[in-house]
Amino acid sequence: MPRPEQRVRKGEQTRAAIIDAALDQAARHGLEGLTIGSLAERMRMSKSGVFAHFGSREDLQIAVLKEYERRFAEDVLAASLDAPRGLPRLSAMLGRWIEKSTREAENGCLWISGAAEYDDRPGAVREELVAMIRSWKDALSRAIRLAIETGELRADTDVSEMIFDIYGVILVLHHDSRLLASPSAGERARLAIARAIDSRRGEPRPAASTTDSLATDRSAA
Amino acid sequence: MPRPEQRVRKGEQTRAAIIDAALDQAARHGLEGLTIGSLAERMRMSKSGVFAHFGSREDLQIAVLKEYERRFAEDVLAASLDAPRGLPRLSAMLGRWIEKSTREAENGCLWISGAAEYDDRPGAVREELVAMIRSWKDALSRAIRLAIETGELRADTDVSEMIFDIYGVILVLHHDSRLLASPSAGERARLAIARAIDSRRGEPRPAASTTDSLATDRSAA
Repeated sequence: MPRPEQRVRKGEQTRAAIIDAALDQAARHGLEGLTIGSLAERMRMSKSGVFAHFGSREDLQIAVLKEYERRFAEDVLAASLDAPRGLPRLSAMLGRWIEKSTREAENGCLWISGAAEYDDRPGAVREELVAMIRSWKDALSRAIRLAIETGELRADTDVSEMIFDIYGVILVLHHDSRLLASPSAGERARLAIARAIDSRRGEPRPAASTTDSLATDRSAA
Repeated sequence: MPRPEQRVRKGEQTRAAIIDAALDQAARHGLEGLTIGSLAERMRMSKSGVFAHFGSREDLQIAVLKEYERRFAEDVLAASLDAPRGLPRLSAMLGRWIEKSTREAENGCLWISGAAEYDDRPGAVREELVAMIRSWKDALSRAIRLAIETGELRADTDVSEMIFDIYGVILVLHHDSRLLASPSAGERARLAIARAIDSRRGEPRPAASTTDSLATDRSAA
């Protein structure tokens, strides 16, 4: 008979496997396309077996969003924290975001497809989605402010305006690469981000180096 | 007994009324949320009565898209053709597009919500949607090229790049005003479009006037 902690571990593994399958299904058919029935079928489990891990479809949808956020934070944010604060780190984050968006073009970004699904559908899933996007925008704000502090971006840089510009680039990258199957969307996005940075470039203080930032941008792209 | 031409006219009126109701329904629930059943209920008609005007749900979805395109072309493109060719006309088109997008924020743009619905759903509706977006991008290209010809935009302006930038602005306007309920998205979009133009501004030939273009931009916004 398994000891209690083994049972807990097994339960966590099953839950993680269900979320993994659900993430894949949501990427293909949207969070609203996620059903406990089709998930149970795919996992070769009973519906009540899936329900044992998630109280409701809404709980499952939120768990999927949280896992998406965890991976996004790991791939885009955490991986960029090695880069020096200021423009190198901001460029690394933006480069990895474009890289992830390009890689995801086949399935689509859950936050962007979720935006279209939930923008007129109030409820817990929408609230979770909005909170995640706000939190990511906050992380971008911090990175932009650090680049203003180093002097690499001009002191009068409007942070919200810059985020608006950057978000537009990611959204049109997603739109053009998915709906229009445009092969040049990734490269266009990289150039557009470079222009969004260049138009706000300041005179860096001696400690910082703008050539470094370009190198980081390239390696991340 | 009604004469044949009266019957034809009545049939056309009923068809137009169905499309009008369907357009409203699609704006709220997406083109995929459109069902003959709910439409028949709303029109107080039988399902077969609706089917008599549209052979299938797909035909109805395409008819709705075509009506959306007709209104878009009327509101955004045709209304701007009075403005002199060159930057005044381009600015008028972009101003009216932002105005329409802001007005539509409550329901959402059918092309943008359709992009998320159909980017992974092959078929006739997607093909129609893609053709419409390409055709609108062609109209934008022509307007940008005329502004290059007048010298108001620089000769080395990359037309596809400019359209990529403009599309990003409209997509983030839609995203922020709908999902994030941002009250400043419309104004931010207007400023972003102005920057997209200003960064490409050339030396106009004597015949053209850039102050005109600003006035047109204002009146259209």
